[in-house]
Amino acid sequence: MAKKLQYGMVGGGAGSFIGDVHRRAIDLDGKAELAAGCFSSDFSKTLQTGEQLNIDKDRLYKTFTEMAEKEAARSDGIKFVVIVTPNNLHYPVAKEFLKRGISVACDKPLTVEVEQAIELKDLAEKNNCLFAVTYTYTGHVMAKEARAIVKRGDIGDILVVVAEYPQSWLADTIEKEGQKQAAWRTDPAQSGKSNCVGDIGSHIENLVSYITGLKIKKLIANLDVIGEGRSLDNNAEIIVRYDNGASGTYWCSQVAIGFENALKVRIFGTLGSVEFEQENCNYLKVTKKGQPTQIYSRGNGYISEDAASFSRIPTGHPEGFFEAFANIYSAFVNALIKKLAGEKIDEKNFDYPNIDMGIEGVRFIAKSVESMQKGSVWVDMD
Amino acid sequence: MAKKLQYGMVGGGAGSFIGDVHRRAIDLDGKAELAAGCFSSDFSKTLQTGEQLNIDKDRLYKTFTEMAEKEAARSDGIKFVVIVTPNNLHYPVAKEFLKRGISVACDKPLTVEVEQAIELKDLAEKNNCLFAVTYTYTGHVMAKEARAIVKRGDIGDILVVVAEYPQSWLADTIEKEGQKQAAWRTDPAQSGKSNCVGDIGSHIENLVSYITGLKIKKLIANLDVIGEGRSLDNNAEIIVRYDNGASGTYWCSQVAIGFENALKVRIFGTLGSVEFEQENCNYLKVTKKGQPTQIYSRGNGYISEDAASFSRIPTGHPEGFFEAFANIYSAFVNALIKKLAGEKIDEKNFDYPNIDMGIEGVRFIAKSVESMQKGSVWVDMD
Amino acid sequence: MAKKLQYGMVGGGAGSFIGDVHRRAIDLDGKAELAAGCFSSDFSKTLQTGEQLNIDKDRLYKTFTEMAEKEAARSDGIKFVVIVTPNNLHYPVAKEFLKRGISVACDKPLTVEVEQAIELKDLAEKNNCLFAVTYTYTGHVMAKEARAIVKRGDIGDILVVVAEYPQSWLADTIEKEGQKQAAWRTDPAQSGKSNCVGDIGSHIENLVSYITGLKIKKLIANLDVIGEGRSLDNNAEIIVRYDNGASGTYWCSQVAIGFENALKVRIFGTLGSVEFEQENCNYLKVTKKGQPTQIYSRGNGYISEDAASFSRIPTGHPEGFFEAFANIYSAFVNALIKKLAGEKIDEKNFDYPNIDMGIEGVRFIAKSVESMQKGSVWVDMD
Amino acid sequence: MAKKLQYGMVGGGAGSFIGDVHRRAIDLDGKAELAAGCFSSDFSKTLQTGEQLNIDKDRLYKTFTEMAEKEAARSDGIKFVVIVTPNNLHYPVAKEFLKRGISVACDKPLTVEVEQAIELKDLAEKNNCLFAVTYTYTGHVMAKEARAIVKRGDIGDILVVVAEYPQSWLADTIEKEGQKQAAWRTDPAQSGKSNCVGDIGSHIENLVSYITGLKIKKLIANLDVIGEGRSLDNNAEIIVRYDNGASGTYWCSQVAIGFENALKVRIFGTLGSVEFEQENCNYLKVTKKGQPTQIYSRGNGYISEDAASFSRIPTGHPEGFFEAFANIYSAFVNALIKKLAGEKIDEKNFDYPNIDMGIEGVRFIAKSVESMQKGSVWVDMD
Repeated sequence: MAKKLQYGMVGGGAGSFIGDVHRRAIDLDGKAELAAGCFSSDFSKTLQTGEQLNIDKDRLYKTFTEMAEKEAARSDGIKFVVIVTPNNLHYPVAKEFLKRGISVACDKPLTVEVEQAIELKDLAEKNNCLFAVTYTYTGHVMAKEARAIVKRGDIGDILVVVAEYPQSWLADTIEKEGQKQAAWRTDPAQSGKSNCVGDIGSHIENLVSYITGLKIKKLIANLDVIGEGRSLDNNAEIIVRYDNGASGTYWCSQVAIGFENALKVRIFGTLGSVEFEQENCNYLKVTKKGQPTQIYSRGNGYISEDAASFSRIPTGHPEGFFEAFANIYSAFVNALIKKLAGEKIDEKNFDYPNIDMGIEGVRFIAKSVESMQKGSVWVDMD
Repeated sequence: MAKKLQYGMVGGGAGSFIGDVHRRAIDLDGKAELAAGCFSSDFSKTLQTGEQLNIDKDRLYKTFTEMAEKEAARSDGIKFVVIVTPNNLHYPVAKEFLKRGISVACDKPLTVEVEQAIELKDLAEKNNCLFAVTYTYTGHVMAKEARAIVKRGDIGDILVVVAEYPQSWLADTIEKEGQKQAAWRTDPAQSGKSNCVGDIGSHIENLVSYITGLKIKKLIANLDVIGEGRSLDNNAEIIVRYDNGASGTYWCSQVAIGFENALKVRIFGTLGSVEFEQENCNYLKVTKKGQPTQIYSRGNGYISEDAASFSRIPTGHPEGFFEAFANIYSAFVNALIKKLAGEKIDEKNFDYPNIDMGIEGVRFIAKSVESMQKGSVWVDMD
Repeated sequence: MAKKLQYGMVGGGAGSFIGDVHRRAIDLDGKAELAAGCFSSDFSKTLQTGEQLNIDKDRLYKTFTEMAEKEAARSDGIKFVVIVTPNNLHYPVAKEFLKRGISVACDKPLTVEVEQAIELKDLAEKNNCLFAVTYTYTGHVMAKEARAIVKRGDIGDILVVVAEYPQSWLADTIEKEGQKQAAWRTDPAQSGKSNCVGDIGSHIENLVSYITGLKIKKLIANLDVIGEGRSLDNNAEIIVRYDNGASGTYWCSQVAIGFENALKVRIFGTLGSVEFEQENCNYLKVTKKGQPTQIYSRGNGYISEDAASFSRIPTGHPEGFFEAFANIYSAFVNALIKKLAGEKIDEKNFDYPNIDMGIEGVRFIAKSVESMQKGSVWVDMD
Repeated sequence: MAKKLQYGMVGGGAGSFIGDVHRRAIDLDGKAELAAGCFSSDFSKTLQTGEQLNIDKDRLYKTFTEMAEKEAARSDGIKFVVIVTPNNLHYPVAKEFLKRGISVACDKPLTVEVEQAIELKDLAEKNNCLFAVTYTYTGHVMAKEARAIVKRGDIGDILVVVAEYPQSWLADTIEKEGQKQAAWRTDPAQSGKSNCVGDIGSHIENLVSYITGLKIKKLIANLDVIGEGRSLDNNAEIIVRYDNGASGTYWCSQVAIGFENALKVRIFGTLGSVEFEQENCNYLKVTKKGQPTQIYSRGNGYISEDAASFSRIPTGHPEGFFEAFANIYSAFVNALIKKLAGEKIDEKNFDYPNIDMGIEGVRFIAKSVESMQKGSVWVDMD
């Protein structure tokens, strides 16, 4: 094993759920190690988190700009930065690192505005950086298997997509009771134009796109704002038309009591269908026309090579959320290692969500909001 | 037990799936017996079916008009007629019987045009007839329990409804191979304006309305026509807005490989949610805010009295499709028996789908088609 | 359709769950009709039940012996009798009818003693009677499909059987509170040597035997008596060895809170496995070595002809407990009609549980009790 | 965060599934790091694995005895050793480390003979060592929740236990084709007296004991040897009697096609029941008498504090096999850190499987084999 790649993190201080997830997921494969951080706008918190995580004190920074400057200046500086801040900071933070040649793994949605996302892409290209957008769920082995099944033509031409992502964590207005994540998610200044479509609708859009390869041509969106004092959506129904003529319906909700994190994607084709559920992520339902429904299970011999290569443990031993995240980082770090070794990298050959997917995600959110504002009419994606 | 009530049937000849279902369902409770029929436009088929069913030959009729006339003229004539023809015949057949004072149980959708449905209602009232529209799925004990749960306020105010009805029987163009039911379902002349929304979308509309009591205020519909040579929809996504401000999303499909008859309704409120699945009809998923999801099972002590009264066998002994149908007929025949005994009947006090629900169903289909034709824009229900 | 066959019933008076089930199940196919009865040892109750069921008063009898005599004497007498009494009466009742040439459909367990069961078989043969033992669950289409799958060799040679039948209705000592069925089930005088093994363990034995064709060679049984004041078993674990060398484990319980009527049979062979669950009776889990688990669903084209011939409605439209019962009666009545028409009948060619299965069931119960009494040691079945 | 604790590993070389699992699981929490190893009896393999894992070359050892000696001699020597060899080596390896005061985390079953296990316990006590036996499945948050539910009395007094652990990986005789794990599992010299009961039956015994606190008083076992050329069991049915009078039935199998790693434990009490399934490890089925079954989900507010403290991510984000393992190590390392800091440790206060559980496990295996050898008769546990 080569020495571990060093990375830094912006955001993800004590109390952040997602910062911890990124760190543990990266640890699971032991290919990279955290070496620098600006975990909070409050430096005392950064110091505290840094100490907990055994980071050298001189690599804990007051601002992300300082961090980008100083790490870029070190000969042993970080090779990539993980951005796990509220949405509105993704763009300015990513910019600082990219322009100094440091690769980026950024949480989704990539930016608030489509233009910002495109700018980041240009910057990454100009400065020869890799860029991953951490859409977790494409990391699941069985999401990859769903993609392989579609690609192989097992379900024929796609006719209909039905996808949903219900949660219930915002059923109460917990942002009023100091729940930190709820506070920024429901705040337009930090979340951007949309809360629910931005946070979880965008996962639907990404996962469907990842599995099917379809592009959305136009969409109709209905966004609901539920709960006193709220201004951003927390429930949405979206009808889409894809470039191949198929239609789809997406539902996402943060007020759907009875559901926790229930991302589910169903793809229907002329020859069969495939269904992936995040909460039951080691399995896949596959039905071929005229045949019984089959339950594919991760880790078996019939799983395609591309998907199977991301499996860590035998069938029947459940993998979960950390493994999905780890798979994204595994592909990203592999690409980065090759790039650092001087190879010419085409990100399309590495199975992590790249900046093009990030841009599509931001566009999807913007167009959904636009459709709603115009009275839930068809809005073209270009 | 009083003598069995005699009924007649129009449609449902040999080879018809649904005629047989209606007859067996009625037999299950032994309160009514088939005594007359016009099972086909081809009289030889009517004779053949009549013989199989032990019907007196002189009560087998060449036309439904003849049947209505002669049965109305008999002192021991049928007390109600069951109409199980293709959709386009519901209206003319029902009219013949109603105007002669014979009550009607008619398959859904009630008619092709809204005006026809309203006319039938007027006719039924004028002639003192009862009228049931056999929306099967409201007959399930656990659909009734879902309604009781909502009514009791267990899930609070309704915020969101998500319902679907995927099937796959029209994935192939089997109407070209002589499959009789497929032939008329896909034929506008017999089916009316819509195939998929008409046949199964209308079940969604009815079941949601039955469980929640909500009325649709407006809707957006996207209807797809899939399969060469077809002209009617077989896949549809519909967004609805209810009178209480809640939103809903309905998906129905006849080309969704992997699903057979998978009507599922989920109702989300401020305090909880309830989920009913037709294919798993002895159970109900209920979640109250902050509590584990509960699996209600038919036949237990905690089931509400209204729902429980329709249960025939103990918990763990599955009831199914026939029982749902039988429950509709059981309520209808009970009402009819009382009416024939001279009681004044308010159909709202009997738990079967009445003609008002039938009218709403036809309107829902018409408005869905209208929205599609106008480019999937909001269309008001009135 | 020929005229309906007339049958009589012993037991099954008002308040009896199972009498009603038998009657409705027979009605479902309309091939036979109830014409005579001795529904209770209390004649006033028989009269009351008879009136509810529209039975001619002169065919309601004070004793089953009187009924057997008088019906046998009528030229239009019943063609078969349904016996739905407590277990201890099966033998004397069946005897009276058989010796007068009236065929019998009797509830399980067939008798209390093995010798009685064998005597009934001899009597049936001598008097040219058919004899069905109403083991309900072999009536399910998907239990028949499981049998077809095993027969066809799809799962290879059978290695292991795991079957269970947990219920919870006797978790409380409801027999003390006047629950009638609990009272006789827990009473050795009416139930026989065993309550739990007798009532539901025997269903396991029968269903496994039906699906696999295996014969039990020897068994070890552990029977528990749970609940104050009880003397009969209500929980049992049984290990069996079959004639082909395979082993099996059976668990039945009436005190297993969380389960209602959860008969489940899993058969493991050298090439695959098959799993049938009574509460989910429209489906079957089938796994072939190295392949994904498949969910077979009743009503599809891939279902074997033998099983499919018992299906009444399309896939996705649930059938249940009544249909299973009806299928047993359907096969039995078909055989009887042919016999009455003068055909020579081999009961093995008709798919209903015959008296040989009934005998095996009584033997299984007796041997289980014997093993327990000897300290849970191996006991041979012959 | 304090500096990471250093540990060593015996066994777990390249190609070993379980060595990798232990290492990643420990990494997930970042409290300990691998610093020394004797990964194989073939030193070249140890060197290769060591290089892959970035271990200092001078801490890679030819024999486990050398490793124990030299690590014990270093001032910065390992604080505990992880033993992941075939079963027969657990005892000699553990002994070498314990006698030099190095704590041990050893795979199950702890030893081949009961006496060896007791000897290890004495040695651990004498040398002031901690000892964990890595029974994975007690590490699951929801197994801990099951235990909390039982402890709290939610399901009353335990009456019946039904547990199973079916797998199918030995359905074919893959040991003949060079599958390494199959080779040693089916070899009495390396596996000990039992393969199936030893490997997975012992997990059932441990998990039931962990959740219920019950002790087995006596048992009856039937062990099957399936597959040509095999001499050790790969399917077993065991009936147990617990000290409180309750009975239980355990089934484990390695030839059960259709099941992968399907450990399932159901506990039935006077007031309710609880069910845990390893393959669906984020949920628990709980039924209280007279109430609907409830699905407890990890990460919710109603989960007991003891269990919840082991949860890493929010509800709906699946945890799996690695997390279960990590939880065992987390508790063990916590205890060890306190001990190293001079605190007096009572292992019973730390939630990892200790050496007493390890001893019980070996006894269970030995007694199961003894019962089988005596003709499947009751064998007392003491």
